[in-house]
Amino acid sequence: MTREELLATQTRIASYIHRTPVLTSRLLDEMAGARLFFKCENFQRMGAFKMRGAVNAILQLSEEQRAKGVVTHSSGNFAQALALAAQSIGVKAYIVMPENAPQVKKDAVVGYGGQIIECASTPIAREEMAAQVEKETGAYFIHPSNDLEVILGQGTAVLELLQDYPDLDYVFSPVGGGGLIGGTALAAHYFGQNCKVVGGEPFGADDAYRSLQSGLIESNETTNTIADGLRTQLGDINFPIIKEHVEKIIRVEEKEIVAAMRLIWERLKIVIEPSSAVAFAALLKEKQSYAGKKVGIILSGGNVDVTKLPF
Amino acid sequence: MTREELLATQTRIASYIHRTPVLTSRLLDEMAGARLFFKCENFQRMGAFKMRGAVNAILQLSEEQRAKGVVTHSSGNFAQALALAAQSIGVKAYIVMPENAPQVKKDAVVGYGGQIIECASTPIAREEMAAQVEKETGAYFIHPSNDLEVILGQGTAVLELLQDYPDLDYVFSPVGGGGLIGGTALAAHYFGQNCKVVGGEPFGADDAYRSLQSGLIESNETTNTIADGLRTQLGDINFPIIKEHVEKIIRVEEKEIVAAMRLIWERLKIVIEPSSAVAFAALLKEKQSYAGKKVGIILSGGNVDVTKLPF
Repeated sequence: MTREELLATQTRIASYIHRTPVLTSRLLDEMAGARLFFKCENFQRMGAFKMRGAVNAILQLSEEQRAKGVVTHSSGNFAQALALAAQSIGVKAYIVMPENAPQVKKDAVVGYGGQIIECASTPIAREEMAAQVEKETGAYFIHPSNDLEVILGQGTAVLELLQDYPDLDYVFSPVGGGGLIGGTALAAHYFGQNCKVVGGEPFGADDAYRSLQSGLIESNETTNTIADGLRTQLGDINFPIIKEHVEKIIRVEEKEIVAAMRLIWERLKIVIEPSSAVAFAALLKEKQSYAGKKVGIILSGGNVDVTKLPF
Repeated sequence: MTREELLATQTRIASYIHRTPVLTSRLLDEMAGARLFFKCENFQRMGAFKMRGAVNAILQLSEEQRAKGVVTHSSGNFAQALALAAQSIGVKAYIVMPENAPQVKKDAVVGYGGQIIECASTPIAREEMAAQVEKETGAYFIHPSNDLEVILGQGTAVLELLQDYPDLDYVFSPVGGGGLIGGTALAAHYFGQNCKVVGGEPFGADDAYRSLQSGLIESNETTNTIADGLRTQLGDINFPIIKEHVEKIIRVEEKEIVAAMRLIWERLKIVIEPSSAVAFAALLKEKQSYAGKKVGIILSGGNVDVTKLPF
């Protein structure tokens, strides 16, 4: 992936997404001892950065491919993102979701025009069902994170951030399946002025941290975290990018995630989901290392049940 | 008050406040059947529009007056606003608060450098204590809403909104003590293109509605509303402005306030306090009257205890 491909991606998806705002807070700067620039993907269409990658992946298909639709498996934001992106572009979307997925998430997918195919609640069942849909319909399979076009799309968030603030010293990103931090790493590499990328990851789903330690893709031993968007697994397409361009990954405790989330709600006055708070929690945890620096922080999404908050 | 005074106020306070963003939402537009422009004063410094009026009132004092400080009585956002405004300008602030005010609010005032003077929890006790402080210290008394300079300051929110969107057909404002809707009415009168002003008020504290009906300032018979910022009383300075320039006031039920608040949280992904939701609730209640119109809606503040939500 090149600098030019990232710029072309930005142009390609521009009319389908929002250029999201960047918020700052004197009080949070004081707390962190650094100058913070929060990239607010919670204000993105359908409420998360996932829209960027979903739109880009569909737009890169041929007319013939588009005519047969797209398929993915996801119980989270990518399910909604692919449904809305497909609807916006005029393509059919099949979304494989576990049968026990929350009704509110199923409703959202249907609201965006997606067709849900239910499966058993295991990773293998999801992949098998997606493969079956692909075979039966001819729909094109788009992985939520381990896909070059998805990674390029997600990278446009920090591309925008660096266009607004070119001299950031660091960008902090949450780490789930690796699509966001992979795209972020490319954007920082090509458009930063020696801008380093740091990941935040829950202890309860720390495959990326351990993968960077071992140099091989490690599996999550547990997925016990409130950051439900980060329970997913690194892939073989994004891991090499992460290995090359991410400086380090900081693991955080559940209570640190909740505390960071609450600070964002109370001080920035915005609604973010737990996964979104992980990058900020990571910065706060090791703030002495970033004192006085200019730090971008990705707030990845805002899709949270406001009747069930952890504080 | 003239057009020029409002513009001069905007210039005067500019370096002490944020020019707040305006958010839009396709989904909320569809729900309302109108085009909505949400003026986000929850992103204002200290979290509410009150900062505007507090800054303006202090800046209009002479050097001699400033040297003796300012005093107000408030248990709400104006307490924090006057403390922070005074600190920013370098003036001492005495804040009379009822002894049973929540500790979190007292802490915020102290955090902004204000000196709290406690009093009994009745309107008369508050006024008497403020008068006593004024007498003993020579501090200048600034009323939270019934003050010309405060009204002009609050009017700059909708002045900004109309600079961004000059052709709004309506602006909806919550109605509490009358400072915000009074300033809004002046801004719409001078800077709108036939832009009408509508107020939203809780049934549980409907002094402004009844005052417009009778033509005289009526008292709140109850203050039973979750919209704690709107329990206050209209005054003799803002009521004539409201009577002249506000088209109507729509009263809303408590459950309508909570539903509107939740929609804003879920769809705009921002944190607003209950009082902030009242204008939007009023629009939704009578939306058939505003179909197809361009409607500005003031979201007045975001200071809410996120651990105690009504949904």
